[in-house]
Amino acid sequence: MYRLIAILLIGTLFAQETKKELSVDEKMFAKIYQAALEEGQCYENLRALCKDVGPRLSGSPQAEKAVMWSKEVLEKLGMKVTLQEVMVPHWVRGAKEKAHVVAHGAIKKRTLNICALGGSVGTGEGGLRAEIVEVHQFSDLEKLGKEKISGKIVFFNRPMKATNINAFVSYSQAVGQRTRGAVEASKYGAVGVLVRSMNLRLDDYPHTGTMRYQDGVKKIPAAAVSTNDAEFLSNLLREHKVVKMNYEMHCKTLPDAKSYNVIGEVKGSEFPKEIIAVGGHLDSWDIGEGAHDDGAGCVQAIEVMHLFNVLKIKPKRTLRVVMFMNEENGLRGAREYARVAKEKGEVHVAAVESDSGGFTPRGFSIDTAWPRMEKVLKWQPLFAKYNVYAFFPGRSAADVGVLKDGRATLVGFKPDSQRYFDYHHAASDVFEAVNKRELELGSATITALMYLFDRYGME
Amino acid sequence: MYRLIAILLIGTLFAQETKKELSVDEKMFAKIYQAALEEGQCYENLRALCKDVGPRLSGSPQAEKAVMWSKEVLEKLGMKVTLQEVMVPHWVRGAKEKAHVVAHGAIKKRTLNICALGGSVGTGEGGLRAEIVEVHQFSDLEKLGKEKISGKIVFFNRPMKATNINAFVSYSQAVGQRTRGAVEASKYGAVGVLVRSMNLRLDDYPHTGTMRYQDGVKKIPAAAVSTNDAEFLSNLLREHKVVKMNYEMHCKTLPDAKSYNVIGEVKGSEFPKEIIAVGGHLDSWDIGEGAHDDGAGCVQAIEVMHLFNVLKIKPKRTLRVVMFMNEENGLRGAREYARVAKEKGEVHVAAVESDSGGFTPRGFSIDTAWPRMEKVLKWQPLFAKYNVYAFFPGRSAADVGVLKDGRATLVGFKPDSQRYFDYHHAASDVFEAVNKRELELGSATITALMYLFDRYGME
Repeated sequence: MYRLIAILLIGTLFAQETKKELSVDEKMFAKIYQAALEEGQCYENLRALCKDVGPRLSGSPQAEKAVMWSKEVLEKLGMKVTLQEVMVPHWVRGAKEKAHVVAHGAIKKRTLNICALGGSVGTGEGGLRAEIVEVHQFSDLEKLGKEKISGKIVFFNRPMKATNINAFVSYSQAVGQRTRGAVEASKYGAVGVLVRSMNLRLDDYPHTGTMRYQDGVKKIPAAAVSTNDAEFLSNLLREHKVVKMNYEMHCKTLPDAKSYNVIGEVKGSEFPKEIIAVGGHLDSWDIGEGAHDDGAGCVQAIEVMHLFNVLKIKPKRTLRVVMFMNEENGLRGAREYARVAKEKGEVHVAAVESDSGGFTPRGFSIDTAWPRMEKVLKWQPLFAKYNVYAFFPGRSAADVGVLKDGRATLVGFKPDSQRYFDYHHAASDVFEAVNKRELELGSATITALMYLFDRYGME
Repeated sequence: MYRLIAILLIGTLFAQETKKELSVDEKMFAKIYQAALEEGQCYENLRALCKDVGPRLSGSPQAEKAVMWSKEVLEKLGMKVTLQEVMVPHWVRGAKEKAHVVAHGAIKKRTLNICALGGSVGTGEGGLRAEIVEVHQFSDLEKLGKEKISGKIVFFNRPMKATNINAFVSYSQAVGQRTRGAVEASKYGAVGVLVRSMNLRLDDYPHTGTMRYQDGVKKIPAAAVSTNDAEFLSNLLREHKVVKMNYEMHCKTLPDAKSYNVIGEVKGSEFPKEIIAVGGHLDSWDIGEGAHDDGAGCVQAIEVMHLFNVLKIKPKRTLRVVMFMNEENGLRGAREYARVAKEKGEVHVAAVESDSGGFTPRGFSIDTAWPRMEKVLKWQPLFAKYNVYAFFPGRSAADVGVLKDGRATLVGFKPDSQRYFDYHHAASDVFEAVNKRELELGSATITALMYLFDRYGME
């Protein structure tokens, strides 16, 4: 097999050198990448979304501003725009969190970089003061038992594993302490939890993200602590058996708020009943600008329409650009979009989402049944010239994943994952952290796939 | 063919899921990547090279410090280290350059971000004041003729082309204005040249780099201007026909200085006469820290030995880690290394260099004849699991390229190229611009290839 692959690879490579006739698709790919890199609007759109709109947590005024901004942008591109109403959770952070280690031996009131996890209750005025107990797995809670946990702040300090090549795998292995930590610790009488930030790097940024409570289990405040401070605390606990900390958070959950998915549509000229959708999620966390998560995905989805316009591609199938609301703390937008689609009997041939950052494109994760899978995998060689190789069967992305119905081909755009968690849900996720060319190459790659879905369909 | 590739791809992908027996090579690859990500030293070595040693232009005291630093690091890894003497150019920048547009209509003495190109003569005290004439190609010089160029500063303003997917192609298409601009403009009586920085991005950093004079053509001062200022000047020239500028540079070339290639060696246990070499260039430009160019390559080459040690790989062939001196402005180190190797009748089975930045690994460019090429291409599937796909025939890298003798297999490590020219030869090329994981994944990828060269040889 090695021999065969080698020969195929060489065949592909040398083919680029010779003046063979380019196929229609090869020519269109070249035009798409050229237009993205020379006439692209995604980078300036991202600047506007990050700098003019800013952080846009579900239910916030900026989320509403983002809705109106997207509507305007999609209308300018010639799309018919619908605002699809959806009720979303409305959690607010309140005043900035404060945290410090209580004066202790050589340590004088040392400040800690923390932020409340999304959905957490606050601590009340003056904050919460208690002893810290460090754990790594949920099973550690059982080992320690109520006796050693009751009345304390449980510090979940399991790092993301460095050795997974795909950083998202490390995330999925570690994120449980963030989503379920408060519930599990509360069962043993903990009064609060502190979670090591989901970050492969050592730095001073706390990374927020959603957490959940459970009926019948007391709600306790939950915060993330920066990886540097997690290391600091862990070392301190090795030296001193008893370490106390104090933290104060003013977050709270207000009644659900009204918001919208923003749906731009151009009817297909030949197969108007076959929908091909591309999207990103418009909401973001509140402490950064949501540049990689998921401003990049939003502007890349919008860019599909822009590039189709530049290249005068009139979609044969109905093209939708969807800005989903509330992916971060509820997925309410995606659920409503899928519910309405089902109710109307709409057929989604394919749906693509970019929600892994605005980095150099590497490939696609494809969720569909054979022989549709085979059809998509056959397109891979067209992308190889653009350094996009990794086509693999797997879960797509959160919002479009909800559309799963056995017919739709669902795709997650997969850019390089190595730097993603440097920024994810942190104050560092700003416009400046996105590289223009990397973002544009992603837009081109997604557009090229949408072009193929439109041209060939999936039936 | 699509069908065949699709099937092969699917085969490869599903193979990862099933519990098939891993080959010896697959197991070793897993260990190499794990060790690089969990026990790597390359990032801390890079910090030392950038922060403790600093910029290390050939002939400078820091270049000498870098030599001693590498010697020590390689000796600590158990290598026998040789300092191979080589005379190198010794160009010094002198006091920081100054440049401004001479007061002009609405423009009051506007400062420009410039830096002298490496090898340029200075302007003399008080600087050079003259009118600017903008050109894009060398053919523009002929069109304008001596009449319009004589006594003026020629401003070469050809941007790097955005649409090449490989940014190095854009570099090679544009860099002639930097290397030969002064000579070509001087032939028409120009008194100085200003060159748009080799940068795909619009920013305020001037990017230096080597330039050459020619016997019989008057030496005139040559500087790079930031891309933002190149745009500013070009716009100004559109509005006003006559624009004058003033720039002052104190650079000069001193007599050649003595320096060294640093060569670490471990004799092969089975085939000591077969050399496999891995290197980077130790010298850098003087205005940054040479982090991507080529501190990353140096520490990745050093890391091969570290990872071999961690994994207890005793090389069967003679392993050399070479820190080449003076790649940037002369290639004297590489030439001396190749000359001595030839003189001694040494056989280089393979030589790999990383000199394209410390970014996420994408593949290798391989320079060798069939059937050796076939042998290396057959190894590609081993790398695919680590997202390294792009194996292609092509030029290797500057230093190891000099070893070309029809027998050696020469390889250039190819990381992602999109961000490279944001930093190349600029003050922004600092330690902080390198991502730890991306650097480590590069080290692992290079080490994995070196392991294959060592295990299988190339005969």
